[in-house]
Amino acid sequence: MNKAEKHGRKPSTAKLLIACPDRSGIIAAVAGFIAEHAGNIVEADQHSDPQENAFFMRVEIQREGFGLSPDTFVALWRPLAERFHMRWRMDWGDRLKRMAVMVSKESHCLSDLLWRWNTSELCVELPVVVSNHPDLKELVVRSGVAFHCHPVSAGRKEEEEKPILKLLADNKIDFIVLARYMQLLSPSFVAAYKDRIINIHHSFLPAFAGAKSYHQAFDRGVKIIGATSHYVTDSLDDGPIIAQGTLPVDHRDAVDDLIRKGRDLERVVLATAVHQHVADKILISGRKTIVFD
Amino acid sequence: MNKAEKHGRKPSTAKLLIACPDRSGIIAAVAGFIAEHAGNIVEADQHSDPQENAFFMRVEIQREGFGLSPDTFVALWRPLAERFHMRWRMDWGDRLKRMAVMVSKESHCLSDLLWRWNTSELCVELPVVVSNHPDLKELVVRSGVAFHCHPVSAGRKEEEEKPILKLLADNKIDFIVLARYMQLLSPSFVAAYKDRIINIHHSFLPAFAGAKSYHQAFDRGVKIIGATSHYVTDSLDDGPIIAQGTLPVDHRDAVDDLIRKGRDLERVVLATAVHQHVADKILISGRKTIVFD
Amino acid sequence: MNKAEKHGRKPSTAKLLIACPDRSGIIAAVAGFIAEHAGNIVEADQHSDPQENAFFMRVEIQREGFGLSPDTFVALWRPLAERFHMRWRMDWGDRLKRMAVMVSKESHCLSDLLWRWNTSELCVELPVVVSNHPDLKELVVRSGVAFHCHPVSAGRKEEEEKPILKLLADNKIDFIVLARYMQLLSPSFVAAYKDRIINIHHSFLPAFAGAKSYHQAFDRGVKIIGATSHYVTDSLDDGPIIAQGTLPVDHRDAVDDLIRKGRDLERVVLATAVHQHVADKILISGRKTIVFD
Amino acid sequence: MNKAEKHGRKPSTAKLLIACPDRSGIIAAVAGFIAEHAGNIVEADQHSDPQENAFFMRVEIQREGFGLSPDTFVALWRPLAERFHMRWRMDWGDRLKRMAVMVSKESHCLSDLLWRWNTSELCVELPVVVSNHPDLKELVVRSGVAFHCHPVSAGRKEEEEKPILKLLADNKIDFIVLARYMQLLSPSFVAAYKDRIINIHHSFLPAFAGAKSYHQAFDRGVKIIGATSHYVTDSLDDGPIIAQGTLPVDHRDAVDDLIRKGRDLERVVLATAVHQHVADKILISGRKTIVFD
Repeated sequence: MNKAEKHGRKPSTAKLLIACPDRSGIIAAVAGFIAEHAGNIVEADQHSDPQENAFFMRVEIQREGFGLSPDTFVALWRPLAERFHMRWRMDWGDRLKRMAVMVSKESHCLSDLLWRWNTSELCVELPVVVSNHPDLKELVVRSGVAFHCHPVSAGRKEEEEKPILKLLADNKIDFIVLARYMQLLSPSFVAAYKDRIINIHHSFLPAFAGAKSYHQAFDRGVKIIGATSHYVTDSLDDGPIIAQGTLPVDHRDAVDDLIRKGRDLERVVLATAVHQHVADKILISGRKTIVFD
Repeated sequence: MNKAEKHGRKPSTAKLLIACPDRSGIIAAVAGFIAEHAGNIVEADQHSDPQENAFFMRVEIQREGFGLSPDTFVALWRPLAERFHMRWRMDWGDRLKRMAVMVSKESHCLSDLLWRWNTSELCVELPVVVSNHPDLKELVVRSGVAFHCHPVSAGRKEEEEKPILKLLADNKIDFIVLARYMQLLSPSFVAAYKDRIINIHHSFLPAFAGAKSYHQAFDRGVKIIGATSHYVTDSLDDGPIIAQGTLPVDHRDAVDDLIRKGRDLERVVLATAVHQHVADKILISGRKTIVFD
Repeated sequence: MNKAEKHGRKPSTAKLLIACPDRSGIIAAVAGFIAEHAGNIVEADQHSDPQENAFFMRVEIQREGFGLSPDTFVALWRPLAERFHMRWRMDWGDRLKRMAVMVSKESHCLSDLLWRWNTSELCVELPVVVSNHPDLKELVVRSGVAFHCHPVSAGRKEEEEKPILKLLADNKIDFIVLARYMQLLSPSFVAAYKDRIINIHHSFLPAFAGAKSYHQAFDRGVKIIGATSHYVTDSLDDGPIIAQGTLPVDHRDAVDDLIRKGRDLERVVLATAVHQHVADKILISGRKTIVFD
Repeated sequence: MNKAEKHGRKPSTAKLLIACPDRSGIIAAVAGFIAEHAGNIVEADQHSDPQENAFFMRVEIQREGFGLSPDTFVALWRPLAERFHMRWRMDWGDRLKRMAVMVSKESHCLSDLLWRWNTSELCVELPVVVSNHPDLKELVVRSGVAFHCHPVSAGRKEEEEKPILKLLADNKIDFIVLARYMQLLSPSFVAAYKDRIINIHHSFLPAFAGAKSYHQAFDRGVKIIGATSHYVTDSLDDGPIIAQGTLPVDHRDAVDDLIRKGRDLERVVLATAVHQHVADKILISGRKTIVFD
């Protein structure tokens, strides 16, 4: 019995995500296909990007009554998908996504994710937390999650990431959350989980990318601080932005106050992004996201 | 040449709004109908309310290429609409909506609407402003809009509203904006423009309904003030809410500060609601709105 | 060694809070007194309420170098305080405040407070958590805090509160945080901790006081939800407001979504209020607070 | 009779602003001096910057009853100021500040400032608006303000600014508001009005400095846009920040939507900064501001 069943929240919908060149008739074709197979659409969102001539769609279909199984679906759906040159994926909602969290020393985002997971607000499997420091072991272990410590040194990153990648593979991890993991991942690591690594950056990107964002913000004398959650790419703090949040500050706030206030922002912004990823609400379009919220 | 043409923003889409009991196949039927007649959907939004078993949909269709004229549309569409027991309306985007504004003495919301209208941010015809006081005449007249002053006394409301209703009818007014009009409208007035009168209330409703909201807020010692835009019904400040906004305040703020800060909130919240109404983005469901924003 | 010392954050300032009738010369007298005794003022805030002819002041004095001990201070300060008819208190910062938390079944606020306390963001002693349900025992105990379960029934409240009051007294509790404690406290309980019980209410008060606030908000169709932290008085949800927060919602949000989103709001608003109380930043003036933030 | 008198809001307080090295006894000395001369302090704010060992103070003194005239004040105050190595200025509130506005083609900030000035929310004299384009002439003139058009070309800036500087001098301008003036000012112009030129930039600085900020924001795919008001220095968009604001956006927002939504943000953020400048609430500390709000 998995966590979702335990809490009576078994996902009961399949989610179909589509990206294709824009033209007329796509919605009719997709909705018609689903109706033809007795599917009830409980949510549908679409977006046209005229600049890129691109069309994006997300459809949530009630599993109950839907006349197609995962196997029969592909065979019947493929011709339609090809006709419209679609990239698409279907999440049948049969199983929970498997999340890994990577952390360093700061506990606020991890602690928040653990609480959301423990209370089943966040419906995922969480088999493992990876860190380059031992500090947060107790916090993780007492929630019944495995904790693996893998120190990483700058020069030998790819070599040292290997056991981490093996651990993630062994645990059949679907996506990774960097909950204030203070190490850059190597390009091959990023490529292995392309569009599936979510980071939280402690600034309103693109302002104050890189390290010590709150110190940068303090030195600049901003009146608002921010946090940004984004997918990780090879460019530092430059991946597609999923969610952002801001908070007013003033001259009375020292760097430590920015750090303290920022923690509340970071964990909410990160949790928002993780929720949206888990619910298959995000499509990536080049350097941007479409979040069907 | 109307204002929209002058600014090269002739509306080029038709907007179809639908409310009906929820069942499967609606999206397929609607999108299929439009595709069948060579219509290109540029925006589509839908919402299911499981509690009320109600379904709501808004479709924006490119006029160019759409194979149906307003006349032929009705004949062909009606059978489909009846099959799903739809309440629906279609705005063909042929002409601008005609807006009237009613005010009393305070200029901030009126001045803001005039500016948005003058710069064509707000694409409507604005033939007339009605007030129960002469104070704002100059502001209105110098924008080239007719100003009518109709004092109203509490006891003889229905009688005194008659010339106003005639004026609105003569000007073929589609909807009315109460931009801090400090008079209650009679039930028959409200009925004449049902779901087409937008009010701005200077509080975060349902808190501080009625008069002197900022004084009430000050006396209660709230740390946040608000503004609410809603459709007018016979119940005071109780109609379906369209938009709300809030702003932090503190103990240093006297009533006058709340009033001053609140003005900035009121005009933005009201403008948001008016924009959404003009773009046919609002459906009313009982005491609530669905805003497809 | 207490928690603050462990984390190297021993409070090093004394905080003097003053309320008195407004007249000229108060700041000069207070600042002069402190300067005379070699005190360095690191923060000073004041507020005049012309309506009530009241003056409020908060002064934070560096302990190092200040020439008065707690004993000598009173003798020398009293004449000045009497001259200006001051109500005043001085927190010498020698010891951490002692906080008790009362909860029912929901963990989000408690879990958040425990995390802030564990990481010493919140510099208090936390000897005990009291609940009318056993559900959250494990969460509390594994943080090393005592958990006491005291079921309370409506009819015999005063009787059943007695062991709770004894427990609080035994633990020398300075102030109480109701972290979603779903019981009304009796007037005698409230009187015993007058101005020292902080509650979090899950609405933007005064809207939606009482039970099931999110259901009320959902039924009204608001576009923004809120949370309010306030001192508890005998009037339900009517005590002086300390902090409020708001969050946008829309028609897609079911009651469960309001509850989920509201949790993030509640814990941040409550934590803000608790921080301000702990730092002696709040003065109560009738039905309002002055928060020198 | 000036505008403030006309509206019965004659400034009745003097504002004293002080910056000096931090040490103990400053508040006592300042408050003591004022009390000694029968001054009633209606507002006092101070800030210590431990990093810079700097102290900042703003005191608002009731004119009525204050025993010193502008002339006698200087003689008596100077020794105290010298003892603490103060930079200071005193605004006696005898006359309204004289503001000039510089614009290009966009009307939203100008229109907003004119409305605030017309309704005396903004208590300043506004003798002149300067533009490098003729477009906004009518808007300005019909408010009874002089409009001067001075086209500026990139190569000959200093030369072409001369008549503008003369115009400002002739009008005894105290401070300048750049209400979307799309030209850089020369260093000598900036030097002539050091710390007295307020700009509004249409982004959340330091992100998206320079031109076409909304296009930059759109291309980056941010989920929040911002606006920043700051004092102008020789470094582009890098002067001390006075006020900032943010607004959520999403993938549905085209560049034009960002521009439209941003306008509402810009005018409120700019108006906030102008209000604070007019009320002498801003002290500049290096690259930052201290805003005693």
